[in-house]
Amino acid sequence: MIYLTRRERFSAAHRMYRVEWSDEKNSEVFGKCSNPNWHGHNYILFITVKGEPSGENGFVMNINVLKQIIKEKIIDKVDHKNLNMDVDFMKGKICTTETLAVSIWNELKSEIEKEGAILHCVKIEETENNSIEYYG
Amino acid sequence: MIYLTRRERFSAAHRMYRVEWSDEKNSEVFGKCSNPNWHGHNYILFITVKGEPSGENGFVMNINVLKQIIKEKIIDKVDHKNLNMDVDFMKGKICTTETLAVSIWNELKSEIEKEGAILHCVKIEETENNSIEYYG
Amino acid sequence: MIYLTRRERFSAAHRMYRVEWSDEKNSEVFGKCSNPNWHGHNYILFITVKGEPSGENGFVMNINVLKQIIKEKIIDKVDHKNLNMDVDFMKGKICTTETLAVSIWNELKSEIEKEGAILHCVKIEETENNSIEYYG
Amino acid sequence: MIYLTRRERFSAAHRMYRVEWSDEKNSEVFGKCSNPNWHGHNYILFITVKGEPSGENGFVMNINVLKQIIKEKIIDKVDHKNLNMDVDFMKGKICTTETLAVSIWNELKSEIEKEGAILHCVKIEETENNSIEYYG
Amino acid sequence: MIYLTRRERFSAAHRMYRVEWSDEKNSEVFGKCSNPNWHGHNYILFITVKGEPSGENGFVMNINVLKQIIKEKIIDKVDHKNLNMDVDFMKGKICTTETLAVSIWNELKSEIEKEGAILHCVKIEETENNSIEYYG
Amino acid sequence: MIYLTRRERFSAAHRMYRVEWSDEKNSEVFGKCSNPNWHGHNYILFITVKGEPSGENGFVMNINVLKQIIKEKIIDKVDHKNLNMDVDFMKGKICTTETLAVSIWNELKSEIEKEGAILHCVKIEETENNSIEYYG
Repeated sequence: MIYLTRRERFSAAHRMYRVEWSDEKNSEVFGKCSNPNWHGHNYILFITVKGEPSGENGFVMNINVLKQIIKEKIIDKVDHKNLNMDVDFMKGKICTTETLAVSIWNELKSEIEKEGAILHCVKIEETENNSIEYYG
Repeated sequence: MIYLTRRERFSAAHRMYRVEWSDEKNSEVFGKCSNPNWHGHNYILFITVKGEPSGENGFVMNINVLKQIIKEKIIDKVDHKNLNMDVDFMKGKICTTETLAVSIWNELKSEIEKEGAILHCVKIEETENNSIEYYG
Repeated sequence: MIYLTRRERFSAAHRMYRVEWSDEKNSEVFGKCSNPNWHGHNYILFITVKGEPSGENGFVMNINVLKQIIKEKIIDKVDHKNLNMDVDFMKGKICTTETLAVSIWNELKSEIEKEGAILHCVKIEETENNSIEYYG
Repeated sequence: MIYLTRRERFSAAHRMYRVEWSDEKNSEVFGKCSNPNWHGHNYILFITVKGEPSGENGFVMNINVLKQIIKEKIIDKVDHKNLNMDVDFMKGKICTTETLAVSIWNELKSEIEKEGAILHCVKIEETENNSIEYYG
Repeated sequence: MIYLTRRERFSAAHRMYRVEWSDEKNSEVFGKCSNPNWHGHNYILFITVKGEPSGENGFVMNINVLKQIIKEKIIDKVDHKNLNMDVDFMKGKICTTETLAVSIWNELKSEIEKEGAILHCVKIEETENNSIEYYG
Repeated sequence: MIYLTRRERFSAAHRMYRVEWSDEKNSEVFGKCSNPNWHGHNYILFITVKGEPSGENGFVMNINVLKQIIKEKIIDKVDHKNLNMDVDFMKGKICTTETLAVSIWNELKSEIEKEGAILHCVKIEETENNSIEYYG
């Protein structure tokens, strides 16, 4: 079993809040991440897939195919966007990095399996100090 | 003459646009950076000051004083904020990194001179691939 | 299960040696890391906790609470300190990064459990080339 | 059980191709990585070993010994070399990063066991965006 | 005057040598960089342009235009290529990073002037430890 | 004129203080950097030299020669050392990064001139957030 990781980046605005809470309550729970006028990040996304390398070409998965899947399913939808307002797979969710990682996992899992590999990990670095990993 | 650089970080939302232009015109000029629902970045700010080191303590400028000035005058105003909507010194300006660098220069220059050093450069990295420097 | 990692930094002096060995013997075993006049590092600390995200706020653990625990229990005690001489939880131990990682684990484990999450990993980068991980 | 990781770097040329395929077929499968005149990378190699820290010196394994093993068995053979033409342990193999990671594992495993530690992971970063991990 | 820097990357093989010298002489002067079977690097290229920001859009130069010029004139010609054999603007030159920087300067200068900005610096990082800057 | 930069690293202990001041006074001026039991850093040193590339080999200066000079004159004296106690060229000086940069400049200047290049800049990163540059 070999693990292949692709790193991609996207820049997006977001706000952490519950719609049914007041600004005060949101600020109490989410702090400055709950600014009503939004803030944003350069998110760094690491997608790890695993599998046996092909006897024919030595690849776990063709990395150009992996790039294309991540681009179409994730980056094109989130880059230079508002994660709360513009992204179909985040609609109605609290926009934490935890939730974003799980949502990205759900978007990618079957697409990667179609290519004969297994999705192993979605890692998101929100800042250089904070990151989230999800293994399904 | 010695140069001292302090690196600080802030996360903010912004949009590049001219208010008097249509969304189509803005999109034509500013591309995806003009998304009406905002996007955002982890900005990295490098403030360089210069001067002769003090004979008494060997410093160009006490870095804790420099940190405090940058925090009060810039970071507290821009971190987890919307650069277009929330920041007094960006009001009415086109929110490019070029404009942001010049505006930060104007906020810091006299504060640093009060401490006996000279502001040399404001550098902003908007993404790992794009950065701006301003030397006054 | 979701994994949340917080990165913190501290700068400290240390020396690797056994008090009952001669300087020659210490130098033979620990090399230049045994300099009797100390040396030091910018240590980078990664604390990973795991848990189920809360239904209420979408967090594994509030990262501001995690930051505060790491600050009080670790950073305030080790930053700009001598790891051998100044740090209560390193007293009487050989000051390798292995020992430091285990000691930090022991300081943090129950504090993180009180907040409803589980300590998963303590990782320390001593230099850009050398790092240690401990999973309990 | 503690995990110790050593990071090393090497710069090498390579080409991905199957010798029995035409240039067209190779280009179709391997893309620009199949340029007949070679291309190259600054590879970053992370070797992780694991074990119980010694009661005598607090080490999982003396990192200078680990460095020396990686240098002799790997770096001296691959640095400033052509991975396809110059490296004994890559002869006759398709030169993907997957294959390189497995080959490096095979070169290091028993050498590390002789020192009383266990090889845990070989990780190779080919570019800042693409990496491979192998755990045996 | 404001300075805008774009970072791009390319992976290439090269060899430092003079064609009229023996392998021994080349090895004596260029060391392991003269391996006859080539070696390679992940080169990081920083292109800095300068100018007055436009009153209309706040840009020194539209970064998408700068990206496109660097892509067409440089990256498409050097990425996944052999710098000695495949690159028209390196033909007949000794393939040091110094020479590469000057050659890239010559390829870009007039293209950037056509867009109303001035080429200020070509910086190339060959490895994390070695870099070259050229200011014309 | 071309600029060549070599990056080197060293790990050292230090303390900022004036010997004639009390611990209280030192603490007031230098803060936690004045801990009497020392602290330390992974210093990153960037040495930039400039000159015309040689017509014979295309180099501003042979980087292996530059590495050797930096190693002998600086790294061997400061790495895994106490900057205040162990380093001849820091004796009797206040151990700020400003002073260290000037002192390193003085150690290297004539050595680099002997090789036909000109020392342009000594840059020291003390932490990822604080750095000093000196141009003579």
